[in-house]
Amino acid sequence: MSDHPEFISMKLQCPLPKLNYEFITLGHGSGGVLTHRLLEDIIFNALGDRLIKQVHDAAIADLNGTPVISTDSFVVSPLHFPGGNIGDLCVNGTINDLAMAGARPRYLSLAFILEEGFLISAFWDILLSIRWACQLNNVMVITGDTKVVDKGSGDQLFINTTGIGELVTEIKFDGSTCKSGDVVIVSGPIASHGMAIMSVREHLEFETTIQSDTKAVYPEIELLLNNFGDRIKFLRDPTRGGIGTVLNEVARARNMGIELEQEKLPILPEVDAACELLGLDPIYVANEGIFLAVVESSAAEDVVEKLNSINGTQQAAIIGIINEDHPGKVVLRNSFGGRRVVNMLTGQQLPRIC
Amino acid sequence: MSDHPEFISMKLQCPLPKLNYEFITLGHGSGGVLTHRLLEDIIFNALGDRLIKQVHDAAIADLNGTPVISTDSFVVSPLHFPGGNIGDLCVNGTINDLAMAGARPRYLSLAFILEEGFLISAFWDILLSIRWACQLNNVMVITGDTKVVDKGSGDQLFINTTGIGELVTEIKFDGSTCKSGDVVIVSGPIASHGMAIMSVREHLEFETTIQSDTKAVYPEIELLLNNFGDRIKFLRDPTRGGIGTVLNEVARARNMGIELEQEKLPILPEVDAACELLGLDPIYVANEGIFLAVVESSAAEDVVEKLNSINGTQQAAIIGIINEDHPGKVVLRNSFGGRRVVNMLTGQQLPRIC
Repeated sequence: MSDHPEFISMKLQCPLPKLNYEFITLGHGSGGVLTHRLLEDIIFNALGDRLIKQVHDAAIADLNGTPVISTDSFVVSPLHFPGGNIGDLCVNGTINDLAMAGARPRYLSLAFILEEGFLISAFWDILLSIRWACQLNNVMVITGDTKVVDKGSGDQLFINTTGIGELVTEIKFDGSTCKSGDVVIVSGPIASHGMAIMSVREHLEFETTIQSDTKAVYPEIELLLNNFGDRIKFLRDPTRGGIGTVLNEVARARNMGIELEQEKLPILPEVDAACELLGLDPIYVANEGIFLAVVESSAAEDVVEKLNSINGTQQAAIIGIINEDHPGKVVLRNSFGGRRVVNMLTGQQLPRIC
Repeated sequence: MSDHPEFISMKLQCPLPKLNYEFITLGHGSGGVLTHRLLEDIIFNALGDRLIKQVHDAAIADLNGTPVISTDSFVVSPLHFPGGNIGDLCVNGTINDLAMAGARPRYLSLAFILEEGFLISAFWDILLSIRWACQLNNVMVITGDTKVVDKGSGDQLFINTTGIGELVTEIKFDGSTCKSGDVVIVSGPIASHGMAIMSVREHLEFETTIQSDTKAVYPEIELLLNNFGDRIKFLRDPTRGGIGTVLNEVARARNMGIELEQEKLPILPEVDAACELLGLDPIYVANEGIFLAVVESSAAEDVVEKLNSINGTQQAAIIGIINEDHPGKVVLRNSFGGRRVVNMLTGQQLPRIC
């Protein structure tokens, strides 16, 4: 995404302004002159036409439909990773949470917690990524906040995004209508985001660099909604905890069994290799640009075909089925027919993944 | 507020559950089993009936009116201070931002960034304060997020709250209708919040402990709206940067002059003494429970009388006037008739005040 020609051209048109400060100082969090300068010189400037400037600390949201709200703080480390950075990650992540609830993403709030000493030029790059991700997804930044903490009390930059969307359907994708025989689909290869972060942290080098899958999946959700309506019964983006944890959540909540077929799980070869090297189970590794769906069996093939026909979900696949055999449990079947229970992630696999 | 009998009784009814963990660990941010435990054992439990539990990562907001959104991150240090803690501060602060835009506060999102090693019992106390502040103000927590950062990458607890309100008036309180002769009112004594934090940090002791003024001012705003409508022309809560900075913002934005009378500024004697001791100008010190209003001169006395008649704003006062003499500038007149220009706060007076 970061090498898209339009994004490169946007960056060329928006060079960092010449300033008499290079780093974030405590004064940038004072609410006074320096805060105003940081806002005008850097934040408003970088966000450009993606920002709706309103005078007050609160903003009016013009919506066509019931408001849907989602909030997420992003503390990912490192801030930049192959395939993205905390900027596009925070926009995409929040859009995806709204999409999973059947809402069209419209507005974002942006709240920054900056650490004293953070490089303004690094902040600028991240802001441009936020603008680009907003532009790609037709969302506007509507309000925000900027705080500065003293050196050692933060870690460069944390971002909270709250998304405001408008409900586009009455259907609830919470799994409450799931029944035995329904089919589990994943929209793309698993574990890419987590392993992209991990390979940077562990300085792993492969022939192919592992890229984060960070992207917004709202267009795909709208497509499915328009074509399949309430034959889509459950939607969720499997971020922290991976597909293993999310499927456990719905299996428990709805007291249904889920059986996955290991060999059907799409995974990129370099991601698979990295997981093996580090002894990580890809089923628990975070994703940031795919979703899980449970759909009526009669629609399953068509849903996958529809997803495969569009850019970004060509590797969507049927990965499992809902059954009555082991209510509340997720079971993984390997190619030899062996079965093992997949529990929810215990402990912490990869801290600060998002 | 923290010694209200109902709050004390609520705390007695909600003792910290017996757990097999005492501190936040990285696993509590994994998205897996430990995150679920933290949510169920602590967060949901403490928030009690103030939480609307929805299954998805996004929540539907049921509003009677145009949605108004405000976001704020709270990084106050220390977490507890006389008169409040980060918990009631984050609720009140966000409610106040909505109120200033003419919106009735309805819902909050809560996003926690916890530092590894933070005491669960301290978190519990803060959550109970959040619940109590929500209860007092009839707002509900609608969605949230919990992240954990490694020890040394945060400072115990940061909270982001995004508020969702419903617009109750068509009037804009952005100062666009202000004219010469309009009157500036403050709803209570200035500088209390900032000096409460500062006196803890500097270990200052006075005969009377300085209490933060943290409180939600929506009821007062509703009262003014119902009684005075569009004779109220500007509303703002003077948090970071104090009344000096906020009045400069509106003076510049509307190119109007503001003249303040120093001896009319309400300030508690202990706060005044502390400011003098530390060499701080109370005009720049943060407030968390008062608001500034610019009102039509014909309504000014009635507005003050109305405010003085209710609990919490008995010290509301007329403090200045809009004029044409020095457009874009705020001028302070002392009791001898001397005048000085009040600029926007430069530098950083009190880091991490909210």
